[in-house]
Amino acid sequence: MSIITVSREFGSGGREVGKRLADILGYSYYDREIVSEIAKKTKLDENYVAHSLEKGNLGHLPINFGRTFSYPSVIMTDAVNLFSEQHKIIKELAQKGNCVIVGRAADVILKNYNPIKLFVYADKKSKLARCRERGASNENISDKALEKEIKKIDEQRAKYHELFSDIDWGKKEGYHLCVNTTDRDIKELAISLAEYVKFLMK
Amino acid sequence: MSIITVSREFGSGGREVGKRLADILGYSYYDREIVSEIAKKTKLDENYVAHSLEKGNLGHLPINFGRTFSYPSVIMTDAVNLFSEQHKIIKELAQKGNCVIVGRAADVILKNYNPIKLFVYADKKSKLARCRERGASNENISDKALEKEIKKIDEQRAKYHELFSDIDWGKKEGYHLCVNTTDRDIKELAISLAEYVKFLMK
Repeated sequence: MSIITVSREFGSGGREVGKRLADILGYSYYDREIVSEIAKKTKLDENYVAHSLEKGNLGHLPINFGRTFSYPSVIMTDAVNLFSEQHKIIKELAQKGNCVIVGRAADVILKNYNPIKLFVYADKKSKLARCRERGASNENISDKALEKEIKKIDEQRAKYHELFSDIDWGKKEGYHLCVNTTDRDIKELAISLAEYVKFLMK
Repeated sequence: MSIITVSREFGSGGREVGKRLADILGYSYYDREIVSEIAKKTKLDENYVAHSLEKGNLGHLPINFGRTFSYPSVIMTDAVNLFSEQHKIIKELAQKGNCVIVGRAADVILKNYNPIKLFVYADKKSKLARCRERGASNENISDKALEKEIKKIDEQRAKYHELFSDIDWGKKEGYHLCVNTTDRDIKELAISLAEYVKFLMK
């Protein structure tokens, strides 16, 4: 059984890389299913779960456990439940067979499966352009403000990852391959990348 | 014309990656030729040049220009000449056509050619094993001492690189692809990697 985890900077196209890799390899791709499953199990609103976890953007959820008592206990309970359910569901999905999972610290959660760990990144300009292209953010936002938003999301991803691992998010040492998507067409990139990933899975 | 630069941690197998990529792609591979050429032009002993530059190990050459005056002027002159010749020769070779150049800050020196920039790395254990395998060092050296030697060489490489560039050596942002060779057979790896490199050169 082979598992591929794709960690990525916001706006780098890592999600598309993961989806396309899964398609080329005939692997399952888990994304929104994870959110739906968590919502079902925790009886929390799916949008709330998505907002809190999908993009690694934990928003107001308490990351700093030293400040726990300043948060209402319901949010604290939500956070623990969300983390716990996400871990459980990712492990359940991994057991079903070959798959690609993007983000969600899956590289750490599934470490016993020895996943192939990819990291996808790009330069600032390229990430800004990709964010605008897919309309992920307000059209009226300035480049500077969007850049700040991207940085904040990545910082949250790093923080989330580091809750469960000693290995820093985004440091090349933690991955089998780090892929720079700057100025690249993801569709074409994925085709060539799949060849290298096949080698890594041998 | 396509140029591929391979930066690498000592013991990661990056040199072999570069050589094999060149063979697969039918590209020139420049390595010892650069040293011979520098020796010829500077009238310095080839082994002295090799020792000083080949592995990015500048030995006693003055890196810290703030301390220039504490070095004998002949060494200072050698250093400047070596650096200068190396830059010139790398640029001359690049003009000859498709090639792979390993190390020597070629990624920075040839930046106007928009080279494909790879970085090859591996974990400590793997680098130690590779160093022992190829007998690059004293057999009686302890793991700890060898590890220290590897670290020192990489630090010199980083320092050399940073003389000419604002981009930190080994930071993934400076490369198109970062390849972890831990527990991989370089021969097989190069075959799959060549596919991705072809994509990058499109």
